Amino acid sequence: MTPTPVTTNLPTQPATYSWEATDEEVAARYGVPIDRIVRFDLNTSPAPPELAGRVLAGGTFETPLSEYPPADYRRLVEAASRVYGVDPDELLVGAGADEILDLLGKVFLPPGGSAVIPTPTYAMYRVVTEQRGARAILVPRLGPDAAWRFDPEGVRAAATTADLVWICSPNNPTALPEPDGAIADLLAGIAQDAGAAGRAPAIVALDEAYAEFVDRSLVGLRNEHPNLVIVRTASKAYGLAGLRVGFAIARPETIARIAPFRPPGSVSTVSVTVVTEALNDPSGMRANVARVDAERDRLADALREAGWDVGPSVTNFLLVDLGTAERAAAVATGLLERGLVPRTFPEGHPLARALRLTIRDRAGNDRLIAAAREIG
Amino acid sequence: MTPTPVTTNLPTQPATYSWEATDEEVAARYGVPIDRIVRFDLNTSPAPPELAGRVLAGGTFETPLSEYPPADYRRLVEAASRVYGVDPDELLVGAGADEILDLLGKVFLPPGGSAVIPTPTYAMYRVVTEQRGARAILVPRLGPDAAWRFDPEGVRAAATTADLVWICSPNNPTALPEPDGAIADLLAGIAQDAGAAGRAPAIVALDEAYAEFVDRSLVGLRNEHPNLVIVRTASKAYGLAGLRVGFAIARPETIARIAPFRPPGSVSTVSVTVVTEALNDPSGMRANVARVDAERDRLADALREAGWDVGPSVTNFLLVDLGTAERAAAVATGLLERGLVPRTFPEGHPLARALRLTIRDRAGNDRLIAAAREIG
Repeated sequence: MTPTPVTTNLPTQPATYSWEATDEEVAARYGVPIDRIVRFDLNTSPAPPELAGRVLAGGTFETPLSEYPPADYRRLVEAASRVYGVDPDELLVGAGADEILDLLGKVFLPPGGSAVIPTPTYAMYRVVTEQRGARAILVPRLGPDAAWRFDPEGVRAAATTADLVWICSPNNPTALPEPDGAIADLLAGIAQDAGAAGRAPAIVALDEAYAEFVDRSLVGLRNEHPNLVIVRTASKAYGLAGLRVGFAIARPETIARIAPFRPPGSVSTVSVTVVTEALNDPSGMRANVARVDAERDRLADALREAGWDVGPSVTNFLLVDLGTAERAAAVATGLLERGLVPRTFPEGHPLARALRLTIRDRAGNDRLIAAAREIG
Repeated sequence: MTPTPVTTNLPTQPATYSWEATDEEVAARYGVPIDRIVRFDLNTSPAPPELAGRVLAGGTFETPLSEYPPADYRRLVEAASRVYGVDPDELLVGAGADEILDLLGKVFLPPGGSAVIPTPTYAMYRVVTEQRGARAILVPRLGPDAAWRFDPEGVRAAATTADLVWICSPNNPTALPEPDGAIADLLAGIAQDAGAAGRAPAIVALDEAYAEFVDRSLVGLRNEHPNLVIVRTASKAYGLAGLRVGFAIARPETIARIAPFRPPGSVSTVSVTVVTEALNDPSGMRANVARVDAERDRLADALREAGWDVGPSVTNFLLVDLGTAERAAAVATGLLERGLVPRTFPEGHPLARALRLTIRDRAGNDRLIAAAREIG
């Protein structure tokens, strides 16, 4: 997993979304009963908060389901801005974090522009960049011995000519956050370089999808840096991936640049109502994070005992280095034959010899542990 | 309302979404209790189908809410393809018809390209076009005496150099469908011109959001025309605007061009489940269409008796010509002061002297009739 030099990817063909196989497809392909399928590949939480079912059964939503959702998502914006500690005009709602990424591409990536991506990371940054007709400038992360941090000089240098920098911290799929101060330093460096060159600084999109698992956020940095946009989601710690709600957080003048591109109602009224309640009562999220914490340590220890090289993680998933791409593929097949779906990385990917495994509930994790012992 | 010549709009600044005021904003601004607000401006249906509440209360969805929706929306695709009479590989799901429009822009409108828009029509076509960095070629419709049909020669001529043609039939906000054969003729003309010029024909996006109200669709034309994409929605006749589900229908090879740009899960699992059930049991939709039909005639007659010039309509809304922009503005204010929200058109719009009014339930329509009598 040695870093390769910075590569610039020319968008001859836009990257496409790669869709995960459905439970049904996995069950059919590997001959496993569908109720035995456990998804270790999606970094979701084991269960939704209990209040979700209650709100749905209540049947009372912001507006009747025959009407469009309220165009300003007012109650949701108020709840989210309280939770994230920002003003309502510093926050914008999207249909999952993915729609926020798409909006950032539309607003900040002109066709022919470019975006910096420290790799490996969440695949969608490159998809959004190339679908915009912009170039992806891939800067390799520093590898497992440097806790997979992004290359500070490489990213800063690439940012001098770029429109956008995509940062994920804690990073998916490497499971660790940037070191203290790394992102503040990058923002300061970008501001300094832009000032010296007399140009606007690149937008820094900081995806904090997994922030609740470390109980910290760099949202405070927005005050000094109007070019910073933080991305948050209800899909991970809140356990509500099925409802598709995400947020952009930035200075009001930056949100005002994004807002004209936001569709008036991409988020279902049901999602608006349930996520508002989940933000107003985060006890379900906190209990989920505590459970994931406990299970993460138990699962990682047991997989190590079974002989797997499990990397450190502060998130709800583990990165397991299986040494070679061949062994990773063989282990993946062994897991799939047992109904356990790992996240694999394609040939040529810097993590082709690894698997990414989501922390599930105790019963699911026990099945993974048993499988690891059997497969070896 | 005389047609003006074809105009080409240069995208110095992309068009932005124009968000309707929320109930709360209208209530605050006009001093009306919020429970007295009736939306005549959104072309939605008076109530969701009864089954929606039942499915929500049941609490069983395609996948648990903590997981992402199934990436292939399989059951929803099967239900929709049965209803629309197409094969599953001829259909693609989006977060409302609006996301389908956005996807069509991404796939078929290169930056610097152009799209033909017969105006007046649904505002989003221009927004999507200009947000893509493409030019909107506006071709005026032939006016009320020609039932607001699009200009066949003008649109065909403009299409010879365009990437995309946006057609809405029945058209919003003019409430009438294209004459028999007009769209088939346009497709044939575009194919002929493209063949003669040795170029690919422009994509024709045919938005049939209101098709259920006329109980006919031109979906059959796709067989001859792989450049035709039909747009359908659960937001209008199905009474489920709050759930945000729309569809693209086209030949499999055309759907295959769009599919790589589709986000894997922009539609909530709850929406997927409820809309699947609504498509499988369309009795609620049919009852709604029958109610809207009856109320449309009653409302139109009563408004005409009150002295308003109500145009013909086959849809769930009426276009009312108030003679001057000043009178239209005064009537709009009078309605808003009574909690009744009309769709207005901005200064300079070809319909600035008109209001668009959605058919609501009997009690809502009665309030509109009473207001028309008072305001005059």
